[in-house]
Amino acid sequence: MAAAVTAQQLIEKHRPTLDQALETIRTRAFWSPHPEHPKAYGENGSLDAAAGKAAFDAIVSTRLDLDQPGTDGWVSGETSPYGIELGVEYPHADPDVLLPAMRAALPAWRDAGAETRAVVCLEILSRISARTHEFAHAVMHTSGQAFMMAFQAGGPHAQDRGLEAVAYAYVEQTRTPDSADWSKPQGKRDPLNLRKQFTPVPRGIALLVGCNTFPTWNGYPGLFASLATGNPVLVKPHPRAVLPLALTVQVAREVLAETGFDPNLMALAAEQPGEGLAKTLAVRPEVRIIDYTGSTSFGDWLESNARQAQVYTEKAGVNTVVIESTGDYKGMLSNLAFSLSLYSGQMCTTPQNLLIPRDGITTDQGPKSYDEVVTDLAGAVDALLRDDARANALLGALVNPDVKTRLEAAAGHGEVALASREINNPEFPGAVVRSPLMVKLDGTKPDSESVFLDECFGPVSFAVAVESPADAVELLRRTVRDKGAMTVGAYSTSQEFEHQVEEVCLEECAQLSLNLTGGVYVNQTAAFSDFHGSGGNPAANAALCDGAFVANRFRVVEVRREA
Amino acid sequence: MAAAVTAQQLIEKHRPTLDQALETIRTRAFWSPHPEHPKAYGENGSLDAAAGKAAFDAIVSTRLDLDQPGTDGWVSGETSPYGIELGVEYPHADPDVLLPAMRAALPAWRDAGAETRAVVCLEILSRISARTHEFAHAVMHTSGQAFMMAFQAGGPHAQDRGLEAVAYAYVEQTRTPDSADWSKPQGKRDPLNLRKQFTPVPRGIALLVGCNTFPTWNGYPGLFASLATGNPVLVKPHPRAVLPLALTVQVAREVLAETGFDPNLMALAAEQPGEGLAKTLAVRPEVRIIDYTGSTSFGDWLESNARQAQVYTEKAGVNTVVIESTGDYKGMLSNLAFSLSLYSGQMCTTPQNLLIPRDGITTDQGPKSYDEVVTDLAGAVDALLRDDARANALLGALVNPDVKTRLEAAAGHGEVALASREINNPEFPGAVVRSPLMVKLDGTKPDSESVFLDECFGPVSFAVAVESPADAVELLRRTVRDKGAMTVGAYSTSQEFEHQVEEVCLEECAQLSLNLTGGVYVNQTAAFSDFHGSGGNPAANAALCDGAFVANRFRVVEVRREA
Repeated sequence: MAAAVTAQQLIEKHRPTLDQALETIRTRAFWSPHPEHPKAYGENGSLDAAAGKAAFDAIVSTRLDLDQPGTDGWVSGETSPYGIELGVEYPHADPDVLLPAMRAALPAWRDAGAETRAVVCLEILSRISARTHEFAHAVMHTSGQAFMMAFQAGGPHAQDRGLEAVAYAYVEQTRTPDSADWSKPQGKRDPLNLRKQFTPVPRGIALLVGCNTFPTWNGYPGLFASLATGNPVLVKPHPRAVLPLALTVQVAREVLAETGFDPNLMALAAEQPGEGLAKTLAVRPEVRIIDYTGSTSFGDWLESNARQAQVYTEKAGVNTVVIESTGDYKGMLSNLAFSLSLYSGQMCTTPQNLLIPRDGITTDQGPKSYDEVVTDLAGAVDALLRDDARANALLGALVNPDVKTRLEAAAGHGEVALASREINNPEFPGAVVRSPLMVKLDGTKPDSESVFLDECFGPVSFAVAVESPADAVELLRRTVRDKGAMTVGAYSTSQEFEHQVEEVCLEECAQLSLNLTGGVYVNQTAAFSDFHGSGGNPAANAALCDGAFVANRFRVVEVRREA
Repeated sequence: MAAAVTAQQLIEKHRPTLDQALETIRTRAFWSPHPEHPKAYGENGSLDAAAGKAAFDAIVSTRLDLDQPGTDGWVSGETSPYGIELGVEYPHADPDVLLPAMRAALPAWRDAGAETRAVVCLEILSRISARTHEFAHAVMHTSGQAFMMAFQAGGPHAQDRGLEAVAYAYVEQTRTPDSADWSKPQGKRDPLNLRKQFTPVPRGIALLVGCNTFPTWNGYPGLFASLATGNPVLVKPHPRAVLPLALTVQVAREVLAETGFDPNLMALAAEQPGEGLAKTLAVRPEVRIIDYTGSTSFGDWLESNARQAQVYTEKAGVNTVVIESTGDYKGMLSNLAFSLSLYSGQMCTTPQNLLIPRDGITTDQGPKSYDEVVTDLAGAVDALLRDDARANALLGALVNPDVKTRLEAAAGHGEVALASREINNPEFPGAVVRSPLMVKLDGTKPDSESVFLDECFGPVSFAVAVESPADAVELLRRTVRDKGAMTVGAYSTSQEFEHQVEEVCLEECAQLSLNLTGGVYVNQTAAFSDFHGSGGNPAANAALCDGAFVANRFRVVEVRREA
C-alpha cells in the first residue's frame, strides 16, 4: 500500500515532541503538548468549540462504519447519563475473521521499528487532539462527567497519558541496539567474532477492555503502550462508553492506512447487550496482552483465567485520607470538599474514608473536635455546591443506576453528616445529579468496619472516628494491604506522624499526597510526573506509567552469525 | 550496627565496574570483569587452584552454619555425580521464624537506595569471584559438569549474569529521579507547585528455587535482580545442588553484615528429602517474587498457584537445528559435535532435533544425502570424544539417574546412528559418563513426532528426516510454538531460506544462531550481549536479562507535597 504520509515526514513532525516526552519522564517536571483550555483549539486544523459540538451532533444516531473485516452486524444502545440516546451504531465483529486479519497486520508493523511506530502513534494522538472538542462531548455523554472535566480529563490529560506510554515504550525498545559486533579475545588465537541483530517483537494481539467512567484516560495508556510495542490492538469498550473509543479506533485506522500500514492493527469489538464479549475474547489464544479497568471481580477473573496473556488490571480500592492535624484548616477543608465533589466521587482516586481521631485535631484555628471537623467539612462541601450551576459543573451526572442505588443505601449505614441532595440540570433534565453524602462511623466497631472497608463507589464518604492517630495509621495500613488503594492523603503538622504515614505507604505500596490545601487534589495525577496507582497493592497490578507497564509487551529476538 | 565497610568505600571500589556493565548492556559488545582462565586467580586475595581445592576439601563432611534465625535442624545428603558423598550439613529453617526475620531486614535495605544496593551486590560478586576455584569444585560435584566447565560456567559466566542483573536493576530504579519539583502554570494566577519524592520499594521476600545442573549460572540472575531491587532473598536450592548456593548465601550474609545491613536479607532454605519445601514456600504470603529453573510441570504449577508472587520461570523446551545447506561442511559438523557433547547434552540450550531434508543438502564438499550427513555428524562426535581424557573433560557426568534411564530408553526410539558409549573416569570411578546418542527418525511419521516433540533431556539427539526445507521451517515453527525453545540453530547458504527461518524465530520468539562453524556454540550465551531465552515461547516466561526481568521486582512510591 502506498503511504500518503511517510515515516520520515512523521519523524520530522513528531520527533521533537517525543524527545520532550522522553526528557520529561526522566525529570518528572511539568509538561504537556496538549492544551487544557478549550479556547486553545480552533487553529491549525483543530476543531473549535462550535465545530466540535457540530461534529458530535453529526455522529449521533448514525452508523459508524469502521470498514473492519468480519463485521457481522451492528450494535447500539448507549444512553447518555445526561438522558439522551446516542443511537450510534457500531460494527459487531466475528472474532474468527477479525482476529486473523489483525494478526496478519503484525509483521510489517513489527518490521517498521520502534521509532516509526512511535511517530505513527503520535500522529494518531495529534489527530485526536485536533478533535478534542468532539471527544469531550463523547466522553461527557458516556461517562457523565461535566463538560469541562470531560474536555480536560478525556482530552488533553488522556492524550498525555497515551503519549507517556509511547515514550516509555520507545525507551524500552531502544535499550538494546539494532545490532552489535561482538569480539571475544582468545589469547594468541584469533578472537571470536559475531554479528548480532536484535529485534523487538510484539507478543500478539492486545485486548483493551475499556471502562465506563474514563474511557480514554484509562484506555489510552494500555492502547498506546501495546501499539507502540508492535501489537495489534482490539478495543472492547464498556457497552455504556463506546463512542470515545470508537472514535479513537476510527482515527487510528485512518492514520495507519495513510502511513502505509494495515488499518487492522486497530479494531473495535463492540458487543450486544449481555454478550459478555470480554470473557470470550480474553481467553482467545491470539490475545497475548490485556489491559483492563473495572471491578475487582472481573479483574481477578481475567488474572486467573487469561493465562495466555499478560494482564494489566486496575481494580477497586479503598482510598483513605488521614486527618491528624493541619496548619491550614480552611485550605484543608476546601481542598477535601473539592476532592469529594469532583465527578460525584466517581473517580478511582476519590477519597472514601476520612480517618479522624475521636478526640479531635489541632489546627491553625485552634483545636477542633471530631464533630467539628466533620461538620466543617460538610459545610465546605455544601458551600462549594450551593450554586446549582457550579454544582452541575463540578459533579456531572451519576454514571449509571448502580451508583444511585449505592448512594441511597449508604445513607442507612450511620449518622448522616452531610445529606446528598438532588440537583436539577436545566440543560439536561434527564441527568441524575447528586451531591456527596457523608456518613459518620465509629472506626472501632466491627460492624462499621465491614461498611467502610468495602469500596462504595460514588459520591459517598465515611468520616471514621478512630481512637488515636496511631490507630489511624494502623487502619490505613490494613486498608491498603487488604483492600488496596489508588491514593492516600494525609494532613499533619507533625514530622513524626508524617513519617509514620510515609512508612506505611512505602511498605504497603501506595501513592501519598501530603497536606494538600491548594489547587492540587489527591484524586488528580499528571502524566509524565505522577504515577497513577502503584501496581503494588490490591487496587491495581500496574502503575501508569512505568517501565514494567511496557517492558513485557514485547520480547527481543536475537539473530547471531559469525562475522 | 556499625559498618566495617561503608557504602562510600564500596561505591569508590565498584562504581567503575558498574558503569562499564551499564555501558555494555547498551552496546552489547564483549566484556567481562571475571577472568575465564583458572590461572588468572591467586592474586589480590583470590584463591588459586590449590587453595580453592583445599577450601572445598575443608568443607566436605562439615556443618555449614549460616547463623540463621529459625534453624530447627540440619539436613545433608548430597552425592556428587562423580560418586563422592559431600556430607555437608546445612541449616533447616522454620519459615515462621525465618521469614519474619527476613521481612524485618527490608526497610533499611530499601532506604539504602539503588546505588548502595548495587555496590553491595558487586562486593558479594567480587568475593565470590575470589573463591571461584572453590565454587568450581562445588559446582562440579553437584552438577556433574567437568571441572573446566564448572569453573567457567559456574564461576565467571555465572558472576557475569549476576552483575548483568544488578546493572539492569540499577538502570530500572534510577529511571525516575529521587525527587522532582513540578510547577504548573495557571495563567495569571500563581503556578501550582509540588515537591515530589520517588522511592523504589521492593515487593517483599524473593524466593529462588535453584536447579541441579547450573545452580549458580541459572540462580544468580534472579538472586541478584531481587536483592538489587531491595528484596530479601530466600534461596531454596535443588536438594542435589545445595553447596554452590549455600556458599553464595554465606558470602552474601558476610558482606551484608560487614556493610551494616541485616544478614537476614539473604538466607538458605535447605530441605529434608521429600519435604517438597518449594511448594510450601512458594505460596507463603510473604513471598512476592519467585525465580525458578526446572521442569515444565513444576514451573506451570508455580505460575498457576503462587498467584501472590511475580513468577519468573525457565522450563523445558525442544531445541532445533535446521540443516538446509552449508558452505563449511567440516566446520558445521565439528561445531555441532561439540554442541551435542558439551556437558552430555544436559544444557537447556543443547540442540535436540536436527532437521535434515530426506533428499540431502548441498555443501562445499558437494551434495550430501541425509544418511551421509547423519553418518558424518556421528563420526565427528566420535572423533571429538575418541580420547577418554578429552571425553571426560567435555562430557562431565550424568547429573542424576533419570538422565541415564532416559538415555537408555531413547535408543529404542529408532535406528541408532550413534551409540552412546560408557566412558571410564579414572579420577572418579563412580562417575556415570556417557557419550551422546543419536537416533534417526522419520519426521513425517506421527509416532516419530510424539518422540522428537518431547524434551529428552540428556545426551540424546534426533536426526529427523523431513520432506523438504519448507517442511523443516514449518516443523520448527510448530516445535517452538507448542513446545518452546531456548535456542534455534540453522545452517544455510540461501539468503531466502535464512530469511524464512529468521521470520519463524521472530514470529514464535526464539533466539537464533546462524551458520556457526567456529568456536561459538548454539548452546552458549554471553552475559551483557546475548539474551538467554526469549520469554516469549513456552520454554521460559522471562529472558536473561532484560528490562522486564527486573522492572516488576519493585514498585515506585511517590510522596508529594505542596512546595
